[in-house]
Amino acid sequence: NYFLDIWDVNMLRRPDEVNTPQHSTHLYASDHLIVRRGQEFQLKVTFDRPYKPSDDQFAVEFVIGGSPQYSKGTYIPVSVAKDRQSPWAGRVVDSTDNVVTVGITPAPDCIVGKWRTYVAVVTPYGIRRTRRDESRDLYVLFNAWATGDSVFLDDADEREECVLNEVGVIYHGAYDDMSERPWNFGQFDYGVLDACLFIMDKAAMPITNRGDAIKVARKASAMLNSHDDDGVLVGNWSGDYTYGVAPTSWTGSTEILLNYSSSKTPVCYAQCWVYAAVFNTFLRCLGIPARVVTNFFSAHDNDGNLKTDVILDENGRIDKHRTKDSIWNYHCWNECYMSRPDLPQGFGGWQAVDATPQETSDGMYRCGPASVQAIKHGQICFPFDAPFLFAEVNSDVVFYSRNPRDGTLDPVKVNSSHVGRMVVTKVPGQDARRDITDQYKFPEGSPEERTVLEKAEEYGCHREKATPPEADVELDMPLMEVRVGDDFELKLEFNNTSDQARTVDVYVSGNVVYYTGVTRGVGRYRSTWPTSSEIVRSQDYMRKLVEQANLHFIATGKVKETGQIITSMRVVTLHTPKLSVEVSGLAKVSEEMMVTVEFTNPFKFNLEDVYVRVEGPGVMPPKYKHYSLITAGSSLTWTEGVTPRRAGPTKLMASLDCAALRQVYGQAQLTVKP
Amino acid sequence: NYFLDIWDVNMLRRPDEVNTPQHSTHLYASDHLIVRRGQEFQLKVTFDRPYKPSDDQFAVEFVIGGSPQYSKGTYIPVSVAKDRQSPWAGRVVDSTDNVVTVGITPAPDCIVGKWRTYVAVVTPYGIRRTRRDESRDLYVLFNAWATGDSVFLDDADEREECVLNEVGVIYHGAYDDMSERPWNFGQFDYGVLDACLFIMDKAAMPITNRGDAIKVARKASAMLNSHDDDGVLVGNWSGDYTYGVAPTSWTGSTEILLNYSSSKTPVCYAQCWVYAAVFNTFLRCLGIPARVVTNFFSAHDNDGNLKTDVILDENGRIDKHRTKDSIWNYHCWNECYMSRPDLPQGFGGWQAVDATPQETSDGMYRCGPASVQAIKHGQICFPFDAPFLFAEVNSDVVFYSRNPRDGTLDPVKVNSSHVGRMVVTKVPGQDARRDITDQYKFPEGSPEERTVLEKAEEYGCHREKATPPEADVELDMPLMEVRVGDDFELKLEFNNTSDQARTVDVYVSGNVVYYTGVTRGVGRYRSTWPTSSEIVRSQDYMRKLVEQANLHFIATGKVKETGQIITSMRVVTLHTPKLSVEVSGLAKVSEEMMVTVEFTNPFKFNLEDVYVRVEGPGVMPPKYKHYSLITAGSSLTWTEGVTPRRAGPTKLMASLDCAALRQVYGQAQLTVKP
Repeated sequence: NYFLDIWDVNMLRRPDEVNTPQHSTHLYASDHLIVRRGQEFQLKVTFDRPYKPSDDQFAVEFVIGGSPQYSKGTYIPVSVAKDRQSPWAGRVVDSTDNVVTVGITPAPDCIVGKWRTYVAVVTPYGIRRTRRDESRDLYVLFNAWATGDSVFLDDADEREECVLNEVGVIYHGAYDDMSERPWNFGQFDYGVLDACLFIMDKAAMPITNRGDAIKVARKASAMLNSHDDDGVLVGNWSGDYTYGVAPTSWTGSTEILLNYSSSKTPVCYAQCWVYAAVFNTFLRCLGIPARVVTNFFSAHDNDGNLKTDVILDENGRIDKHRTKDSIWNYHCWNECYMSRPDLPQGFGGWQAVDATPQETSDGMYRCGPASVQAIKHGQICFPFDAPFLFAEVNSDVVFYSRNPRDGTLDPVKVNSSHVGRMVVTKVPGQDARRDITDQYKFPEGSPEERTVLEKAEEYGCHREKATPPEADVELDMPLMEVRVGDDFELKLEFNNTSDQARTVDVYVSGNVVYYTGVTRGVGRYRSTWPTSSEIVRSQDYMRKLVEQANLHFIATGKVKETGQIITSMRVVTLHTPKLSVEVSGLAKVSEEMMVTVEFTNPFKFNLEDVYVRVEGPGVMPPKYKHYSLITAGSSLTWTEGVTPRRAGPTKLMASLDCAALRQVYGQAQLTVKP
Repeated sequence: NYFLDIWDVNMLRRPDEVNTPQHSTHLYASDHLIVRRGQEFQLKVTFDRPYKPSDDQFAVEFVIGGSPQYSKGTYIPVSVAKDRQSPWAGRVVDSTDNVVTVGITPAPDCIVGKWRTYVAVVTPYGIRRTRRDESRDLYVLFNAWATGDSVFLDDADEREECVLNEVGVIYHGAYDDMSERPWNFGQFDYGVLDACLFIMDKAAMPITNRGDAIKVARKASAMLNSHDDDGVLVGNWSGDYTYGVAPTSWTGSTEILLNYSSSKTPVCYAQCWVYAAVFNTFLRCLGIPARVVTNFFSAHDNDGNLKTDVILDENGRIDKHRTKDSIWNYHCWNECYMSRPDLPQGFGGWQAVDATPQETSDGMYRCGPASVQAIKHGQICFPFDAPFLFAEVNSDVVFYSRNPRDGTLDPVKVNSSHVGRMVVTKVPGQDARRDITDQYKFPEGSPEERTVLEKAEEYGCHREKATPPEADVELDMPLMEVRVGDDFELKLEFNNTSDQARTVDVYVSGNVVYYTGVTRGVGRYRSTWPTSSEIVRSQDYMRKLVEQANLHFIATGKVKETGQIITSMRVVTLHTPKLSVEVSGLAKVSEEMMVTVEFTNPFKFNLEDVYVRVEGPGVMPPKYKHYSLITAGSSLTWTEGVTPRRAGPTKLMASLDCAALRQVYGQAQLTVKP
């Protein structure tokens, strides 16, 4: 046989072979080679005789999508000949006997997805090409390690965390009394990468756009929710999760993504942190650096306007029928890291994206990417959806007094420091939180802050211009630690800064705040100076608690002598009982060990229809158990034998969920020995 | 009765009353008062006794949407008292006997739509309010005449044309052999305004966004096509229009909009000019200045890249299987006039919007508004979809030679002046066309043009960088006038600019270009120097003609001595026979006159299943007739009695359409006497 005959093509895909450790893709549970673009990988071609560069000509070809075209970047022939340029560089690394080791560097802006690999030999009689062999399919991902890639992130710690860490922490509750919960992103789990690619297929996203991190992130922000497009997750804030999994019950993304890609129908149910967590999995899985952030007191549905309206009646009491806007106690979204060649210089870096379906100003259920730098500087004229995100962290809360005669509203108090009180995310490499408020806003009251707000107004964000006089009586509701189920005392602190006597009637409205802006009262209290505290009873709120496990109190009142309005807002986080997770036995790859989840019902009432979930990356896939009844004071113990699959540090994460008690989490850290 | 009692509220809505002539809304056929915002209108309130400003207090209230709120601008109480500020100014114009004439000025940024009107009297026992009375509903439109309105247009001729003219001209064909067709926008026809408001309802567009011209235009660009959202028009480029009306057959927008609003399902069928024409009706009807523009040689589906690829084989012949991109002979979109407070200064004015569903880079079937100024200056970083529109007028046509051995492509010729060859629109007040290419681009070859292209590249538009050497043989296919059905001679002109002998093999590929980029060959010809023309026979193209009625020829070849590639492109517009429209009798309001449409089949073949349509603003609503057969050489005459409804100059417009012959139009101008 004069011309080269191809006997074998070896993708060198095993974790102990050259490619995956160098590409930081060894953690993916996959039957295929997975590499990152803009970086060389190797494959071995075995011919029927030694390769002679002077006589023989062969190419490795990569093909993606239904109608591969060279000019579209969907058909890539890679030549190893020195005189030929290929879109992806190719070279002979080694040629021994009949085996040629080829080094191939996918272009740093190439299409991300699943490529088919062929080897072709040129003969005078035409081209001889290998047949399609699925085992040679090649996944090419974004590469935060490659300088030429638009997602290049020049910080090793951030990169490790935001691409490779499977375990996350999501913050919630109140900025001054924060809760946290672990989450298993599971981006390396078997089938998750295919599920993420399926999401783009389902969205009919053109193949040629799939190398563009901006477009991928934007498309995913639309596809993560089921609105418009039969996307991944169905939102539900009703408190009734009978026909699905309660948003508070999930412990990781894997189950959700695998369920979606196998059923091809939206998964029930999600709230903001579930959207953000699954979106995070999607981004990390494809190689785009990403993190979940939490914004405390997040404004929403304001049409890009910078105010949230609270309407008071003539006595200074909240008019619940007319107060339609609301503020979330917290809201989670994502940041992803990428350059922004579509914008002027300086707006690359972290980009905010939000997959939770809100009624954005554009009427679309997607949001971002918006440059965080642009948000900070009020440069909200650039795509995508920057005015909306700007409003989420910068809105004023405006209290209006309503004239009962003709319905007109007069602004009586403007609180400009409440919304966007704090933005936090996890510290790279540690289970600790980091305050990143300064990446979104200049300090409260600084001259820069004023300039930025003026800039945003130039771009059409409307603010309340009136500056009603400050009252000379201050009202505060100080922080308190409360366990769910406890009665507690809500303190009202008055401070009379005038030198005259002041009489105040204060109305306190306590609510569980729902996503949709509908609030459900847990009591209304009237305090008259000098009374300074109110007892909130658990029976008032326990039946109305939904997933948020925190209560929002607004105190408003009128100073009798001056007619001035005083207001104060307080979120009370209801601390839930802990779920204990323990491991026993030696944690060693391929050896069985025991995981024990324990919980004691500390309440005086029974818990019914309880779901307990547990999972751990590399240790156990998501499992759940249903307990129809946990009587008051009784305990449950669930022991499960598991066999770790992978060495290294990891976590086991568990949740307990039922209609009467949500947001109960537990975790155990462990290090699996090789 | 001590307190005022309301006897009647008169909206003064008749054309002979004060409001509609002043608001330029007298042309609307409507049972309701229609006014433009930012400008005073009057209404008369009749009480049971004279109004005493010192004692009596009343307000006129306007309400829109399902949950009216003062703070959202959906509930507007207007007081006439001097000491009260209203969001809409109110004053007493006149108070005679029991009748008060109230002047009300809707805010220049108020919500556009259908408001409900109430009058309320304040009494110590509460408010007495009139009941809902549909006849008092008030339509508030955008106002191009009001300086405070974001659509203010400071040019009386443009304003008259782009808001008030019902009759338009749409240009098509080739830039150097243009065809035109009339269109009845019909924005004042009975039911059209309600249909336009229905489109926003159907899109579930938040009421509070409906005062924002940017959002209204963007939402409508999505809703005018049926993709994603069950919008107004279904696109069809197949040539088979059996189950609907052929795109070429429509003569106006009225039928389409009324059909959509009554059936609430998409109307069949449209191509670009139908989308643009109906979008134009929508915008003019709501008061946003708008015009239809035509771009000759419009690039599309390029993912915002600045090149359209033509792949040649080794002989310089087009490789039809590998040439997937295409260029439309022409494409129509809209421009609408508005300020852009969401962008930096200088980008207000005309904004491009496109309702034709193309696969935009964002994967959404909507496009714009994009500032035409921003497109001209390459400032394509600003919303919305500027890169896509920039590519439509600025792409290069790149010819690649394909290496048959390994499939790689080498650029051999770049034609940078073909795409966006000319952009035209109608001159205000005249049936003439205006070249507005200079509003989209700097002159070809100017230093500004180069700067702009570099700017666009900075924002991520990719261009072909190679500058292959120019051939020293030039090839041209000169303009020729051809009637549909005729054989014609396609001339090839060679010009050898070298001083040596040159041999050229030229391949000519003639096609009918379809929207989707699929082309259908009408013949392939091979010319060898010095042969300089080819006969194109009607039998080659007649059966393949679709609605476009023009043929696209690309000639490519290789100079034997040098291997250089030469190319030339030519669109041949096939001129269709005229349809005669004549009126007889006196054109006078409310008096019957005769309209006669005549057509003679000039071909040697029969025309089957022919639809003839005719309509005229203020004269006759859309009517059509079906002729199953018009034999070769025979004629049809259709006479219809019509009764003009309105005085002034107008047009009657007719179309004739069948599978074998499209784009046949006729019109008659007339002036109806009062």
